[in-house]
Amino acid sequence: MTYCLTAHVTGGLIFCSDSRTNAGTDNVSIYSKMHTFCWPGDRFFCLLSAGNLATTQGVVKRLQQDMDQNAAIHLLNLPSMAEAADYVGLINAEIQRNQVSRDTANTNFEATFILGGQIAAEIPATYMIYPQGNYIHESADHPFLQIGEIKYGKPILDRVISPELSLEAAARCALVSMNSTMRSNVTVGPPVELLIYETNSLQMGRYLSLTEEDRFYRTLGERWSQGLLRALDDLPPFSWENPPLAPPA
Amino acid sequence: MTYCLTAHVTGGLIFCSDSRTNAGTDNVSIYSKMHTFCWPGDRFFCLLSAGNLATTQGVVKRLQQDMDQNAAIHLLNLPSMAEAADYVGLINAEIQRNQVSRDTANTNFEATFILGGQIAAEIPATYMIYPQGNYIHESADHPFLQIGEIKYGKPILDRVISPELSLEAAARCALVSMNSTMRSNVTVGPPVELLIYETNSLQMGRYLSLTEEDRFYRTLGERWSQGLLRALDDLPPFSWENPPLAPPA
Repeated sequence: MTYCLTAHVTGGLIFCSDSRTNAGTDNVSIYSKMHTFCWPGDRFFCLLSAGNLATTQGVVKRLQQDMDQNAAIHLLNLPSMAEAADYVGLINAEIQRNQVSRDTANTNFEATFILGGQIAAEIPATYMIYPQGNYIHESADHPFLQIGEIKYGKPILDRVISPELSLEAAARCALVSMNSTMRSNVTVGPPVELLIYETNSLQMGRYLSLTEEDRFYRTLGERWSQGLLRALDDLPPFSWENPPLAPPA
Repeated sequence: MTYCLTAHVTGGLIFCSDSRTNAGTDNVSIYSKMHTFCWPGDRFFCLLSAGNLATTQGVVKRLQQDMDQNAAIHLLNLPSMAEAADYVGLINAEIQRNQVSRDTANTNFEATFILGGQIAAEIPATYMIYPQGNYIHESADHPFLQIGEIKYGKPILDRVISPELSLEAAARCALVSMNSTMRSNVTVGPPVELLIYETNSLQMGRYLSLTEEDRFYRTLGERWSQGLLRALDDLPPFSWENPPLAPPA
């Protein structure tokens, strides 16, 4: 399984992904699901991947090859984020079709991606690219996107992520969402990759790869648990816990 | 969809359920999914239900009928919680078989239950009863059970529910888990039913039915969101937000 998410706030974009892949519960590996493409000063992309590993590797390889071979269309010459999403969607569908054509076992080759980034003076954007090759983008009302095992980590995003949130607060929120998912589902696992892209920087941004032994990441998990207990303590008492004062004698 | 959960703490049992049923997104109704059976001073049961509504209604009706007709086996004469779970599992499987025998459309008649309660001097217990008719019980390491749409509300339970938690804190935690699920999935909806059973009371316990307009329930949701934002503010800063002090001049 996989969990990846992006958040789009005014200050920039947050990308966060786990690194566990499994082919059955007894075949677990570590693979990065975060792929970056940058032409400093002109454009920056981060691609997060979920689904069939042969498909996602095939897609990333093809994106790289198109750039290296200076194909008619590639990530560094497309004029907009929407066209970049369309291009990735097309390649995703094509790689799946190639695999299906060889298959004899009715295998699921589907893969889902989130492509986020900024091209020149365009506003940064994030796109979720479905296995069918089509795509949707985030909005101010729904500034985050998730792929893979999305449910455990969604409530905190629903309550917290909004365009006004600072870039760092959004990054911490993404890490909490990831941390909660990893606690509840062992098929989502470390290291956690985090990338923070600042609007209009058109550079790689800040990147962290966090293992479970990482002091910052451990402290974050512990403090979050403590914060939840405090939040629970602050909830209103039931009526019988807080009896009205006796009338004055 | 449905979300129901129980928590077993030293002080007693918490039962919490939503009330939304749907047959397609355009056919939404309100039905209680919480069913209580009590012989004051001797035993108390609470049954939470998820799945096919005809099956769950059939099971509850049959449990009631067996008691009314003083059948050979019924909830009020079984000697243990384990045997009560077995009895409910048997009826669940039987009701499903009856429906399958009439079906022409390959319909899913499955239902899942949580049965919790206490019989006389036995320790209170909770059982999850599967559509297959078999069942598992909670443990000190895993003191909560969930049925239906379980993922959104699980992280808070994973971090907080432990046998030492007070009955009221566990009840508030259950409400938060429910509240988060309702925010993230519209097929889980109000009113929220909450039942708090105190160990060895062998009575009905405290019962609340909370609508979204209920002041206590609304305050709880608002304070929880505020508490999460505070918990987020308390998380450790990234290294670049907190530069080390310059060495003394």
